[in-house]
Amino acid sequence: MSQSKSIAARKSAAPAPAAGKFDGQYDIIAVGGGVAGLAVALFAQWKGSKVLLLEKAPELGGTTKKAAFWYWVPNNEAMKAAGMKDPREDCIRYMARLSRPEVYDAKAPRFGVSEWEYAQFEATYDYASTATELLAKKGALEYRHVAPVPDYWAELPEDKAPTGRVLFPKNGCATMSDGGEVAVKEMGASAKKAGVEIKTGHRVQRLIKNSDGAVVGVEADTANGKTHRFMAKKAVVFCSGGFTHNVELRKSHLSAPIFGGCAAPTNEGDFVYIAGTVGAQMRNMNYAWMCPIVFEKAIKHDPGLIGTFSPSGDSMIYVSKDGVRVTNEKLAYNESAQAFFQWNPTKAEYSNLVLFAVWDSHAQQHCAGHEYGRFIVPPGTDDSHVIKGNTVAALAKGIAARLAKYESHTGGMKLSPDFEKNLEATIKRFSGFAKEGKDLDFHRGERQVEFLFNGPVGEGAAAGKNPTMYPFAEKGPYYAALMTGGALDTKGGPKTAVNGRVLDDSDKPIPGLYGVGNCVASASARAYWAGGGTIGPILASAYLTANEAHKEKPRNAG
Amino acid sequence: MSQSKSIAARKSAAPAPAAGKFDGQYDIIAVGGGVAGLAVALFAQWKGSKVLLLEKAPELGGTTKKAAFWYWVPNNEAMKAAGMKDPREDCIRYMARLSRPEVYDAKAPRFGVSEWEYAQFEATYDYASTATELLAKKGALEYRHVAPVPDYWAELPEDKAPTGRVLFPKNGCATMSDGGEVAVKEMGASAKKAGVEIKTGHRVQRLIKNSDGAVVGVEADTANGKTHRFMAKKAVVFCSGGFTHNVELRKSHLSAPIFGGCAAPTNEGDFVYIAGTVGAQMRNMNYAWMCPIVFEKAIKHDPGLIGTFSPSGDSMIYVSKDGVRVTNEKLAYNESAQAFFQWNPTKAEYSNLVLFAVWDSHAQQHCAGHEYGRFIVPPGTDDSHVIKGNTVAALAKGIAARLAKYESHTGGMKLSPDFEKNLEATIKRFSGFAKEGKDLDFHRGERQVEFLFNGPVGEGAAAGKNPTMYPFAEKGPYYAALMTGGALDTKGGPKTAVNGRVLDDSDKPIPGLYGVGNCVASASARAYWAGGGTIGPILASAYLTANEAHKEKPRNAG
Repeated sequence: MSQSKSIAARKSAAPAPAAGKFDGQYDIIAVGGGVAGLAVALFAQWKGSKVLLLEKAPELGGTTKKAAFWYWVPNNEAMKAAGMKDPREDCIRYMARLSRPEVYDAKAPRFGVSEWEYAQFEATYDYASTATELLAKKGALEYRHVAPVPDYWAELPEDKAPTGRVLFPKNGCATMSDGGEVAVKEMGASAKKAGVEIKTGHRVQRLIKNSDGAVVGVEADTANGKTHRFMAKKAVVFCSGGFTHNVELRKSHLSAPIFGGCAAPTNEGDFVYIAGTVGAQMRNMNYAWMCPIVFEKAIKHDPGLIGTFSPSGDSMIYVSKDGVRVTNEKLAYNESAQAFFQWNPTKAEYSNLVLFAVWDSHAQQHCAGHEYGRFIVPPGTDDSHVIKGNTVAALAKGIAARLAKYESHTGGMKLSPDFEKNLEATIKRFSGFAKEGKDLDFHRGERQVEFLFNGPVGEGAAAGKNPTMYPFAEKGPYYAALMTGGALDTKGGPKTAVNGRVLDDSDKPIPGLYGVGNCVASASARAYWAGGGTIGPILASAYLTANEAHKEKPRNAG
Repeated sequence: MSQSKSIAARKSAAPAPAAGKFDGQYDIIAVGGGVAGLAVALFAQWKGSKVLLLEKAPELGGTTKKAAFWYWVPNNEAMKAAGMKDPREDCIRYMARLSRPEVYDAKAPRFGVSEWEYAQFEATYDYASTATELLAKKGALEYRHVAPVPDYWAELPEDKAPTGRVLFPKNGCATMSDGGEVAVKEMGASAKKAGVEIKTGHRVQRLIKNSDGAVVGVEADTANGKTHRFMAKKAVVFCSGGFTHNVELRKSHLSAPIFGGCAAPTNEGDFVYIAGTVGAQMRNMNYAWMCPIVFEKAIKHDPGLIGTFSPSGDSMIYVSKDGVRVTNEKLAYNESAQAFFQWNPTKAEYSNLVLFAVWDSHAQQHCAGHEYGRFIVPPGTDDSHVIKGNTVAALAKGIAARLAKYESHTGGMKLSPDFEKNLEATIKRFSGFAKEGKDLDFHRGERQVEFLFNGPVGEGAAAGKNPTMYPFAEKGPYYAALMTGGALDTKGGPKTAVNGRVLDDSDKPIPGLYGVGNCVASASARAYWAGGGTIGPILASAYLTANEAHKEKPRNAG
């Protein structure tokens, strides 16, 4: 685990007894300063509870600060104002269809999903907009409606409101890539104004339990090794993110051997250990919000790593170590990331663990950008992940050399002997498809979401039949980047009720313990419904959790 | 969760205090009466500890009783006697290569795997044979050496002892399918003879902890609802199997949405809850020992379900709902099972969740059998899973009708409109491959393990170039069975040290608590090294655990 020196190392999560001095008493402690923690703190403080917010990193923001921060809010007020319909049952059906495709049953009560899952979907539909409006009304986060943005599965017959559900911070930029910074700044300022006490650089290590077994506080360590004890009379609410950067937890839980991702480096699964020691039931530990990532940035643990949400490039393809395409490069990122983890049952290897994005001078000239994790970057930006070659042969040689540096990270992956020959043929075949505007192999450019993230293209592609494709130039230079699969963050953690209460092995709440966001189980499972499918449900959950926690009768530490 | 009425329902796993009366006092309690529990009980009782063995089901045996019970014992005494070499480092290398292919590094210390994983592999190499010899010497389980049986990845350059590691109970049948029954009978009789007290029909619900926080016993419920309290002065050793039959745990942990499997129906993950409440660290929750299974038997929760270890049939193929082949049908079962869970990222579905085994009258006549979970069964046996049709068209119609019955289990899967047409073409193409003995699409019959499980074949296939294939008959009748992916059992659970001690979140042992077998984490992860790759490591672990538990200083219940 990579740990900044400004953050205390993880220690035992076994709960501490309440006996002893406290360094501060509050009604509610929110652990984590991303959108979940800020929203919980705001909602609870506005109700009248005294809130302490503890953040592990030296500054607020967590993964949120790195996010574009679209938020997916079903049946939002802006939709209603625009006359866009989003019926409740249909919206829940869409969520169920994508979350548990293997049991989805159009005719069954609850569409085949469990009571817990259904209740979580209801909560998102019923309260994401309520939470959003409250934040806007109070000036903590105003939004603008980006009505034309489609859901990621807009073509599915189950999607009855394929556009209209996405909101974006009002003060974010035109390209909608900086919403997270805006949200953290505005919500952070509002929290301070409302009286929330904020302590950064405090890593919560364990819970404090009273003699009844209720959670009544936390112990947090600062970088200097000092342990601070804070009492929470009503509730401790974890909002501390997932386990994207904990190699052991990834290996033991995720369905795919991902290489980290773009979650904040502090997302090391602390709550898995902390909640585990008090008997919380874990759910959906196998799932993550997935995305392709630039392999070399992941290996370097680049804290600025952004998932490749926009795989820009018209004359651009991904090829495997065999030099052939294996996927539609423009799929929504959660789906595209799956291609890397295809198990090869005759070779006992993940043959696509690294794929190679390959593009030409045309794409380099017209499709470069520095937003949304694009790998084709403009001149003057860090392009240490880019391999160049004046010919396909030279490029292949460059790729082989680069790959050789990373054998210990890839199970010894090497290019096949016929990589170069196959790559030539693949480029030719793709260029043929591009001329006709039809990808006979992987159907690139046939779904709405592909245009959403296509990025800038050259005039030819823009004017052509299929703006996601353009024929490769006959001559070099050619370019390549090593790509792999990663996560925005993980989806697993303690099971919570819709009111945020963490549940034990018998589905009974653990008194005083709550969770919101990526540190607890997301019922979304297999799904990435749309841009902001992460944040919309979190706002609903933060709202319900803050209300429930606020209502708790204050406990004693005895 | 399906539960027999002869077994108490699961209740809260929160540990009970030691205060109160006990219904019996022992040194060591082994929980679970499969091979792991029986071996632990025998080894400990032979050392001189007083052992109680508790079994949830009305009879001993668990999954073991259903197993073929090959056991994979590296560098076993029979190999040595036969002059077969199995060097330690090479064997561990083979285990590492297959368990963690994505990080395997031939040049790295520990081959790129973690210290924990490496230590587990060492334990298997160093102690599986010791345990085996002790069982044989004491007459609890004698074996015979089945020297020619290959490892499942015998062709890998990392496998330096591709045959010789597999043993089988001496008194098992010639076809080696009934080893589990033999082992349970013999080991059970030895346990009784040695003085192990055995109580069946006792479901352990929770641990009993003393005031120091050490585990000093268990509470177990009988079917009549009575709770029995048993004290263990030295250790409680869980050997209670995985969570194959717990739908919620499967959904939340496994990397693939499997449909149960051939583990004993009692394998519902009880230890996940029980160990979870005392802060055990979970590992490899995402992995399972996988195998194809007959879909309809899984849906019916047929307790006699056996995984399709032998996909017999020469003129037999698997096709998808599109009527095309998608995999080599003869792959080793752990690999073959993966084919069912290929995610389709453009349709948001598991398109292969059910595949259709299709065969002709030739295969029906020559390849039927009732062992190893074969789906081509002889006349007179239950063939309710078999669909018949006099023509391909009639068969397709029959498949469609059968599939329609299960829409709520398959995410609404239907045959494609061109299924019949494609199936005709697929049969023709396969028959062409069969004539030449070469499968140009999936390389069927090119690996040793495929012959191991090929089952009976007709004369033509036996005499031909490739005994795994035979051309389909021009005329019907044709046959089909719905197939899906399942598990022998799951691989995840609490992390243990090689001495069986269950570890907490800081890798510290939880005093008095041990685990062996499928209820604890298996370091094998992605691997199925060979037949018996399950049981060999379990014997090593049982041996080390019994020794460690026996050495514990007796605790008080106070």
